Amino acid sequence: MRMTDLIVKKRDGESLSKKEIRFIIKGYVQGDIPDYQMSAWAMAVYFRGMSLEETAELTLAMANSGDQLDLSTIGGRFVDKHSTGGVGDKATLLIGPMVAACGVPVAKMSGRGLGHTGGTIDKLSSIPGFRVELTQEEFLTQVKKIGLSVIAQTGNLVPADKKLYALRDVTGTVSSIPLIASSVMSKKIAAGAQGIVLDVKYGSGAFMKTVEDARILARTMVDIGKALGRQTIAVLSNMNQPLGRAVGNSLEVLEVADALQGKGPDDLMKVCLELGAWMLVAGDSVPNVGAGKKCLLHSIESGAAWNKFLAFITEQGGDAQAVIDRSLKVTPWNLPILAHQSGYVQPFDAQKVGILAMTLGAGRTTKDSPIDLGTGVLLVKKAGEWVEAGEPLLQLYGSDKEKLAEGLLLAKDLVSVGNEAPELPSLIEEVIQ
Amino acid sequence: MRMTDLIVKKRDGESLSKKEIRFIIKGYVQGDIPDYQMSAWAMAVYFRGMSLEETAELTLAMANSGDQLDLSTIGGRFVDKHSTGGVGDKATLLIGPMVAACGVPVAKMSGRGLGHTGGTIDKLSSIPGFRVELTQEEFLTQVKKIGLSVIAQTGNLVPADKKLYALRDVTGTVSSIPLIASSVMSKKIAAGAQGIVLDVKYGSGAFMKTVEDARILARTMVDIGKALGRQTIAVLSNMNQPLGRAVGNSLEVLEVADALQGKGPDDLMKVCLELGAWMLVAGDSVPNVGAGKKCLLHSIESGAAWNKFLAFITEQGGDAQAVIDRSLKVTPWNLPILAHQSGYVQPFDAQKVGILAMTLGAGRTTKDSPIDLGTGVLLVKKAGEWVEAGEPLLQLYGSDKEKLAEGLLLAKDLVSVGNEAPELPSLIEEVIQ
Repeated sequence: MRMTDLIVKKRDGESLSKKEIRFIIKGYVQGDIPDYQMSAWAMAVYFRGMSLEETAELTLAMANSGDQLDLSTIGGRFVDKHSTGGVGDKATLLIGPMVAACGVPVAKMSGRGLGHTGGTIDKLSSIPGFRVELTQEEFLTQVKKIGLSVIAQTGNLVPADKKLYALRDVTGTVSSIPLIASSVMSKKIAAGAQGIVLDVKYGSGAFMKTVEDARILARTMVDIGKALGRQTIAVLSNMNQPLGRAVGNSLEVLEVADALQGKGPDDLMKVCLELGAWMLVAGDSVPNVGAGKKCLLHSIESGAAWNKFLAFITEQGGDAQAVIDRSLKVTPWNLPILAHQSGYVQPFDAQKVGILAMTLGAGRTTKDSPIDLGTGVLLVKKAGEWVEAGEPLLQLYGSDKEKLAEGLLLAKDLVSVGNEAPELPSLIEEVIQ
Repeated sequence: MRMTDLIVKKRDGESLSKKEIRFIIKGYVQGDIPDYQMSAWAMAVYFRGMSLEETAELTLAMANSGDQLDLSTIGGRFVDKHSTGGVGDKATLLIGPMVAACGVPVAKMSGRGLGHTGGTIDKLSSIPGFRVELTQEEFLTQVKKIGLSVIAQTGNLVPADKKLYALRDVTGTVSSIPLIASSVMSKKIAAGAQGIVLDVKYGSGAFMKTVEDARILARTMVDIGKALGRQTIAVLSNMNQPLGRAVGNSLEVLEVADALQGKGPDDLMKVCLELGAWMLVAGDSVPNVGAGKKCLLHSIESGAAWNKFLAFITEQGGDAQAVIDRSLKVTPWNLPILAHQSGYVQPFDAQKVGILAMTLGAGRTTKDSPIDLGTGVLLVKKAGEWVEAGEPLLQLYGSDKEKLAEGLLLAKDLVSVGNEAPELPSLIEEVIQ
């Protein structure tokens, strides 16, 4: 088998056999297939696509390319959750404690943020002392003990995806549905998931700009899951507006603390209840989504979820008291953006809010950029809310005077106020399973 | 400017600016742009194509990437010829002496054969002592002296094409019209051509399988030439049957010797007269193609072309007497393939003849394979000719017993004989200028 022939085969729109796909992934990870052949192949995939059979085999080949987590010692059905990324998306931090409080264990590996979207691991890092890197044994022991652990990806998991993603990033081949779908699903499968709940976001703040693209991606991932024997459910959620009011790492942890104590913003709660309820369904803990939501709401009302969150922080070496006291480090360089007139806040561009937060210091422009965990944006008013002239619309938190000034320029015309209350799209578009 | 953005731009079907194309070629030659980005870009070009402006700029950027030959010291208008490659295509060896005998200098750099198509440099190498590598000074001195020299590519000519072609060869991006056209034309322009005559072949033995594809390639190259101020003429010629009767290096040189002495096969003569006449037109030596053909025919009748060929061999250190005596090395391992029945020889697959010759030892499967210059195939009968049962159809020349046996298996059913004389397509389809 020669890689050149397989590139031509894909280029000409033919399907690759399972054996050929395994040859490609194995050869690439071992270094027998060079980057320049892999990138040409990825570009051919970009133009020609892949069948479900090919995509499922690619997913499996990547999942098998390195270590695989064995979660059988935890007991029960293990359900993982993944979000395609958005602005202000702190759902994992909220769902984890709620779902764990409802009796379904959450053993999650998360990523760091890149570009205008945030990452769960950065958010957790804003809690003093919190260890995002545990050994596999510590990780499993903690899940067995309290039902919840969230860590940065560990060990040699899915090296094929790591290598291929880095290559796609610099060769214009990121936005290919089968390559995105297999990248996400391979990580979930290698991490031991038996059930998978996907939050597929669409809109200006999401990777998929249109609901149609998001639907195709969701359908592809659900079908991969089915083909590989994993129950998979995808929730299509709207990311034209940021989720919640906080964007930035310590700001978001504080919002999560509020939400777990019953004071969460409506949009954030709605998305988290939907995703969490499906995790409970997939975990065989409740018979249907309605029962799942009831259980999750009760976990908040009873304080169980909040206590679970504090226990989780403590177990991973974090300072839970700092979260209770709301004394996480937040930059002193902050400024409000005020409304020029009274009226209804009009919808604004979520991606621009993400870029604003990044500019202020909360996000990375490249993988190795430093970030300032105490910076970000607070959306004092959200789209559809009434604001009086002179009241703050946004509060900016920059890592220094220069960053704040830079942010100010971006924020100036970001939010507009009008006489008409805007029509807001529904937050949950569809559930695909 | 970032290469990743330029890949995405091309991937999304946008045109690249002149500046962007120069950035790509310069960056690639200097090693700033890695192979893996270049191959992804080439695949995007494969799918999206390039405009004439882009292709002309790519041609120029490649031509400018290394040394450029200055042929002004030769005097007169310098005309180059290029063939897209075929089976039994010895046209350069025949046209060179004829055109030079008609007063237009021929200073030509040629290539070696690869796959089922032969290369002029290999054919010349079958003449004892012939030097295919001359210094630039020797090359120009010889052209000034006798009006004719043919050598292997010399110096650092078009390094961008060398590097890009090697990459395309292993990344499934060879068969892209703008990439093929710019590769050919950049070499002609760097070699100092003011006029360019292209033999664009189509059919089973050619790189372009259909006349439609060949027409697009020819049109593209002619338009590039025009855009860059070089008079360019393309002749579309049929390569469903091999050209002439000999396929293989020394066998072809002997056929050329016959042809220059007035005993050339009709098809070979027809193509060479057409191409040669256009070279004389482009060289401002004759007013039209008719006058050109007349001059070329006269160069054969008078013996001028034959004498030019012998002088050319002698000047480059070759043993002209061996050509006169027909004592070039030909393998003793030869065998005829006989006709089972009497009848008309039906058209056969030219590519299969090329592969047969390669199998017998005359061609290279990879760039570094050794070849045996004394091997090949003689088409004793060509399509449309009458053969008696028991007469030879083919004569195989293999480099050893094993190769001959291998060739025998391929040759067995290659040529069939039927009761009806086949309709043969016209040899010259069209002239594009």
